[in-house]
Amino acid sequence: MRSSNYLLSTLKETPSSAEVVSHQLMLRAGMIRKLASGLYTWLPTGVRVLQKVQQIVREEMNRAGAIEINMPVVQPGDLWQESGRWEKYGPELLRIKDRHDRDFVLGPTHEEVVTELVRKEISSYKQLPLNLYQIQTKFRDEVRPRFGVMRSREFIMKDAYSFHLSPESLDQTYQTMFNAYCRIFERLGLEYRPVLADNGSIGGNASHEFQVLAQSGEDDIVFSDSSEYAANIEKAEALAPSEPRQTPTQPMILVDTPNAKTIEQLVEQFDLAIEQTIKTLVVVASKEADCELVALIVRGDHTLNEVKAEHHPLVSAPLQFASDEQIRAIIGAGPGSLGPVNLPIPMVIDRTVAQMSDFGAGANIDDKHYFGINWERDLVLPEVADLRNVVAGDPSPCGHGTLQIKRGIEVGHIFQLGDVYSKAMNATVLNEQGKSQVLSMGCYGIGVSRIVAAAIEQNHDDKGIIWPEALAPFQLIIIPMNMHKSHRVQKVAEQLYQQAQEAGIEVLFDDRKERPGVMFADAELVGIPHTLIIGERSLDNGIVEYKSRRQGEKIELAIEQAIAHIQSL
Amino acid sequence: MRSSNYLLSTLKETPSSAEVVSHQLMLRAGMIRKLASGLYTWLPTGVRVLQKVQQIVREEMNRAGAIEINMPVVQPGDLWQESGRWEKYGPELLRIKDRHDRDFVLGPTHEEVVTELVRKEISSYKQLPLNLYQIQTKFRDEVRPRFGVMRSREFIMKDAYSFHLSPESLDQTYQTMFNAYCRIFERLGLEYRPVLADNGSIGGNASHEFQVLAQSGEDDIVFSDSSEYAANIEKAEALAPSEPRQTPTQPMILVDTPNAKTIEQLVEQFDLAIEQTIKTLVVVASKEADCELVALIVRGDHTLNEVKAEHHPLVSAPLQFASDEQIRAIIGAGPGSLGPVNLPIPMVIDRTVAQMSDFGAGANIDDKHYFGINWERDLVLPEVADLRNVVAGDPSPCGHGTLQIKRGIEVGHIFQLGDVYSKAMNATVLNEQGKSQVLSMGCYGIGVSRIVAAAIEQNHDDKGIIWPEALAPFQLIIIPMNMHKSHRVQKVAEQLYQQAQEAGIEVLFDDRKERPGVMFADAELVGIPHTLIIGERSLDNGIVEYKSRRQGEKIELAIEQAIAHIQSL
Repeated sequence: MRSSNYLLSTLKETPSSAEVVSHQLMLRAGMIRKLASGLYTWLPTGVRVLQKVQQIVREEMNRAGAIEINMPVVQPGDLWQESGRWEKYGPELLRIKDRHDRDFVLGPTHEEVVTELVRKEISSYKQLPLNLYQIQTKFRDEVRPRFGVMRSREFIMKDAYSFHLSPESLDQTYQTMFNAYCRIFERLGLEYRPVLADNGSIGGNASHEFQVLAQSGEDDIVFSDSSEYAANIEKAEALAPSEPRQTPTQPMILVDTPNAKTIEQLVEQFDLAIEQTIKTLVVVASKEADCELVALIVRGDHTLNEVKAEHHPLVSAPLQFASDEQIRAIIGAGPGSLGPVNLPIPMVIDRTVAQMSDFGAGANIDDKHYFGINWERDLVLPEVADLRNVVAGDPSPCGHGTLQIKRGIEVGHIFQLGDVYSKAMNATVLNEQGKSQVLSMGCYGIGVSRIVAAAIEQNHDDKGIIWPEALAPFQLIIIPMNMHKSHRVQKVAEQLYQQAQEAGIEVLFDDRKERPGVMFADAELVGIPHTLIIGERSLDNGIVEYKSRRQGEKIELAIEQAIAHIQSL
Repeated sequence: MRSSNYLLSTLKETPSSAEVVSHQLMLRAGMIRKLASGLYTWLPTGVRVLQKVQQIVREEMNRAGAIEINMPVVQPGDLWQESGRWEKYGPELLRIKDRHDRDFVLGPTHEEVVTELVRKEISSYKQLPLNLYQIQTKFRDEVRPRFGVMRSREFIMKDAYSFHLSPESLDQTYQTMFNAYCRIFERLGLEYRPVLADNGSIGGNASHEFQVLAQSGEDDIVFSDSSEYAANIEKAEALAPSEPRQTPTQPMILVDTPNAKTIEQLVEQFDLAIEQTIKTLVVVASKEADCELVALIVRGDHTLNEVKAEHHPLVSAPLQFASDEQIRAIIGAGPGSLGPVNLPIPMVIDRTVAQMSDFGAGANIDDKHYFGINWERDLVLPEVADLRNVVAGDPSPCGHGTLQIKRGIEVGHIFQLGDVYSKAMNATVLNEQGKSQVLSMGCYGIGVSRIVAAAIEQNHDDKGIIWPEALAPFQLIIIPMNMHKSHRVQKVAEQLYQQAQEAGIEVLFDDRKERPGVMFADAELVGIPHTLIIGERSLDNGIVEYKSRRQGEKIELAIEQAIAHIQSL
């Protein structure tokens, strides 16, 4: 490809609207342009990278025995009614009406459509297991789209859905997909981790996320330093401390704390260790709880894990914190003065809290705290549960090593859905005994367009993108210096361009009338792995310069060996 | 691919809902399934064919210098306001509102979005010409979707848009696209014709359609029998008869015709030649006409060409026929008794009508006609225009040969848009003189999903589809007869399957436990070009049978030569 026939569209300035580096670089490198909030046009360089991702994903899905189909973007609303998600999904589901006033949605995912297909198409256990996938445009009406294609409204997903007669068969395909995903992310050349994940609103049993490690990631992921254990922090279990609870040494006393509305203030003003304090968080109770509010208690320096909280039977899902007014009406004190002693609502305490002794907490009276509280002496031990986020240094729940925390970008997610959808939509087949049986399902997503952004978050420097070879829009760029003034430079450049094409190398020939500095800057910004520089002076010695984008070093090559050298890399 | 790992999904019965053969066969061959009106899921066999089409289209677009981009499916409504199509497009444009109540559309085409991109991205004539394309899902909310993917609501298009500084540059790219389209349809192996076409509502100047010839086509296309001339009947010019008008021989007389409400009745009851009669059609006048209704007159055996009529300055666009009440109110007679004599509204007559003499027509009095009417003797010759559809046998407008008419399916359409969109949306660049200049545009569409249906309309027999090689979902099917009873059949089948894969042949190995008859029927239905049949009896002689789907003949091959034979085809 010649630059003069291409739409390079690089930008010198960093657009002020872009917060994260991948968004900035995708705009600057001419990969995307914003059409409207959360809607992006992919420019030629972006499309080239996107197609590389798609190709690798497609090859590995096919190799893993999945079969490609293509379902409509526009889906009938009645299927979403049937699955129950028409009500549940919230405003991210863009509901539309056609000219006949019938309900449709723009598909954010395709469980309903694929279940409808399979319940009509598959009648016998002999046709199972079956794993169907597509690579396709999806739409999610994000309230606040951001970070470019990382969280856009329209995006490209690979989504696969498998169907089974038994949990064992589901397990097997789940493992096959797990392995295929590992191959995909390895081939893409990304540093990634499969981590245990929460199933979230999609329902079902086991699930793993595939996270690309990057400091800008929105997810906290947790690793053991001496085992394979890895999990999203949402899912990582915080074990109970192994030491037994210490015997009380202090009496419980009521203390005036008029200026201590927060843990930090309390600790500072009364010279307490933060590990001797607790936080009492009040949330709306579930229907089962048979009361209005429930208190959740974690140690002063810990944070509530909202996913764990939401899964507790006493807590309403989705999680809703009580308002100050609700708290005062029922407890009689403000949120800064709450604690377990004399608390008139049910409470659940974190495992770590259950092992504490001689600790301080609000007294449920404004501006007063109790110090020296002890379980079983001053009050009955309440229900204990795992409620907190793990922190670095916690013991790993696998039993081996301690935990570390890194940031990640979720680019894949695999789920064992079980019969959530197949039951709601009555997707059955006849089993070997000739009896009707509800199908088990798995689903397996990859954020194809998001991978492009995640790869950049992980692979860039202050000059631009540094593509892994497998994703690069071009493998090689040929930069002739002042070609329009030197017939010799032009001749060698054209000749190398020709040779590179014949060798099957994806090559960009920068034949623009630009200064060499502009060309070098663009080549580095766009992140092409290999550069050949042709200059009048080095041609005197029969030489061209080679530069690697990642290593940065320049070496000299004989003209006639240049293309063979690129091929060898 | 093994059938046991595939979703073959063939149907024995023809679904009653499918009217045309391609729709029937796509359902029966397991290529598509209906999700809702005009919405189809593509099954694996369908996806394989679709991807072949996409690949050929992509290769030829790239070869022709077009650059691939990818624009969103969801488009901001304000761009459509700007181009004026928000009002004009009608209910086929699905208008939607996002969660913030902002207007969007599901893109039926992308002129607005690409013009928005180019006006922001391109500032100098140096970046022109530019030809951008995408292969992408589109949506058109058809009032009556039908014929499967031939006229569905969601479909896949390749759409390209070119931008130019001069009409000459537009001409040049238009010709390049014309040639690329010819290569595409040749590579697809389809019998097609490029034909002159009307620009329709998209606006602009020159345009050609690419029509796949098939009896079920919705379009009439017109050819010269002795030149390259070809046109959509909408566009084909009907020349004036070359013979001069004959001298009158009859007096004009008023005749009672109480039982002649139609041309057919008139001709039968009064023993007239239909060529001696005319039809007077009354339509709503344009604003320019400065009157309510206009009469359009064609010979009794001719039909009005509605596109030509609509283009006439006196006629309103879109064309609207007057109601019986409107006609009676202004003319004082019913539609069965209209004619040019004493007609109180403006009229335009077809070129053929202008050459008629001694003809009959309604008298604008109920149940009365004039016979023996002659122009310039009985009434002034009105405005003359080309108003009718050509008929087989007409002279070709190119001056060479006579016209034939065939049926076609429109699968591609190229347009010279000129400045219709760039002017409305103010898309300008600086020209060589440093002055702002409005861009010229071309646009070039291919109905990717429709091509699949059109190929079937053209290539099938009573057993099923007969794929052109380039489109076949598999090149070869291996059918082992009663493999589950014969270890020897199984062994040879597996061995040939292995060899075919190694030779890079796309092969389906029918390893199902089915009767041979079922396998043969499926192979013919799905239309795989080459079949190898492995049977116990012929193995005794070291032989397998080969069958060609298109030619139907069976030949015997030595086992060890079988795959080489397939490769040679």
